Amino acid sequence: MYTSSQLQEEINQYIAGLKVDRQPENLYHPIDYILSLGGKRIRPVLMLLAYNLYKDTVAEILPPAAGIEIFHNYTLLHDDLMDNADMRRGNKTVHKLWDENTAILSGDAMFVLAYKCMADSPGYLKEIWNIFNETALEICEGQQFDINFEKREDVTEAEYVEMIRLKTAVLLAASLKIGAILGGASEKDANLLYDFGINVGLAFQLKDDYLDIYGNPAIFGKKNGGDILSDKKTYLLIKAFELAGDTQKEVLDKWINHASINPEVKIAAITNVYNQLDIRTICENKIQEYYHTAMDILEQINVDTNRKDELKNTIYNLMYREK
Amino acid sequence: MYTSSQLQEEINQYIAGLKVDRQPENLYHPIDYILSLGGKRIRPVLMLLAYNLYKDTVAEILPPAAGIEIFHNYTLLHDDLMDNADMRRGNKTVHKLWDENTAILSGDAMFVLAYKCMADSPGYLKEIWNIFNETALEICEGQQFDINFEKREDVTEAEYVEMIRLKTAVLLAASLKIGAILGGASEKDANLLYDFGINVGLAFQLKDDYLDIYGNPAIFGKKNGGDILSDKKTYLLIKAFELAGDTQKEVLDKWINHASINPEVKIAAITNVYNQLDIRTICENKIQEYYHTAMDILEQINVDTNRKDELKNTIYNLMYREK
Repeated sequence: MYTSSQLQEEINQYIAGLKVDRQPENLYHPIDYILSLGGKRIRPVLMLLAYNLYKDTVAEILPPAAGIEIFHNYTLLHDDLMDNADMRRGNKTVHKLWDENTAILSGDAMFVLAYKCMADSPGYLKEIWNIFNETALEICEGQQFDINFEKREDVTEAEYVEMIRLKTAVLLAASLKIGAILGGASEKDANLLYDFGINVGLAFQLKDDYLDIYGNPAIFGKKNGGDILSDKKTYLLIKAFELAGDTQKEVLDKWINHASINPEVKIAAITNVYNQLDIRTICENKIQEYYHTAMDILEQINVDTNRKDELKNTIYNLMYREK
Repeated sequence: MYTSSQLQEEINQYIAGLKVDRQPENLYHPIDYILSLGGKRIRPVLMLLAYNLYKDTVAEILPPAAGIEIFHNYTLLHDDLMDNADMRRGNKTVHKLWDENTAILSGDAMFVLAYKCMADSPGYLKEIWNIFNETALEICEGQQFDINFEKREDVTEAEYVEMIRLKTAVLLAASLKIGAILGGASEKDANLLYDFGINVGLAFQLKDDYLDIYGNPAIFGKKNGGDILSDKKTYLLIKAFELAGDTQKEVLDKWINHASINPEVKIAAITNVYNQLDIRTICENKIQEYYHTAMDILEQINVDTNRKDELKNTIYNLMYREK
């Protein structure tokens, strides 16, 4: 049994050792760069933890675990380009440090590298290929919905939850399911871990929305209100639109999709509406709901309770994270 | 045994029937659009012809054949974006008809759809996945070399051939090899068909370079000299730089990488250098060389001669095509 920080370390070492010895250099350098920026490596850690429910030989599945992380970073690379984001993990984004074509093509190559790593799985190739394909396509769909939502002010909670399911939750779920399959889990357990992952992923994304406003900037590492300034249709904003009275609706309409000369004023106005409607509690309750559903599913998995402890701890830390 | 036009028809019908019934529409519409623009479907036809050397049940491998064509069209979509090309097959490119983000994301989704089709191969999944991954990565490398060459005037023939091997030839070769493997070919035959495809692909790309200058615009469908105007480092230009005397070198240096107010004057000046150096014959000879190497390799394949006829005819038509 491994702790999640041991697994994170294994992944980091494996990825650091992956440096591709191929040409041309300017195709591969941006890939090394984005992979070197680190991050929590949540997805591969979840894959290894799911595998570790059944088997101890985690080193055997480091290639697909790295594949999931490379894939995730490829989506970040292309998303940052599409969003024209300047920074990623405190560093310049690839399209800013190099240029847009580099971001497109090095991203495309990363996508192939992810598939190459997945193909180095020890068995179950057909199952894994199918899950990975379906997940990758869903993530494209989620990103497109997210882009479409930018131009709308009438996004419903159900639409939003479906969007974050596609854009974020399915990759966590697929990581867990692939880990379970490679560990030799029953089909029932593998599917339960997938559903567990969906609920964890939804809670995880809502926590992200929450921290943008209610996080401690000194710990979270970002100023509060970034999502407000970019008019992001977060869970908080969607609930505010849903619950707003006439006066509050006026405030939202005035600010959303209108740039402000003074960003602080815009953030304060929207946050004030959130506070009036107690969006904070509503969001906390929703996170709790997904979290408890996830824990109920985990209970049903046919493995000794003590083998589930580390997965439970890891999810607990994700839920109660401050950054 | 099928003729290549029968196979082309099979592919077109299969692709037309593929219309993905998924949301959001604006992710999938550009994919339907680019696939509906047609084209020669050379790569899937080659896959089916290679399979048909060994087996008659071509319908069984239509999914991976479509996968190769979808993959090829995805590379065109992203390449057109990177090259900022306006037109593709007489129609507007995706990033012009929609926008750049659509071209990025719908392209990414197409890439996944290609992998999904490949995963529907009847068997040999591990071999096919490995070939496809390696080929896709090589194509990214070829595209990056092509971009790098834009800024250089000292590209050697060897560098150019390696670039077009990666960017163009490996996909034809992989199509043939995958078809052979699915047909149950021996490893030796599958590798011979790969080498055959490399030589066909190199000849095919040189023919493309050739037709840009020496094609009949009425048949080729494009004005002569497009590559000259975009300063493309073609086989013709690289040989001209290599063989130019001082006066000819001066002409090349004057025009290449310098936009001209009068495009016709630039095209005439460069074509004049080509004619002085008889680049036309040099290029024709090189095409012949690759073509004959390909035919020699085809001879060695352990299949009744008459089963090879249609593949031979198809390649002959590609070599002597006017468009």
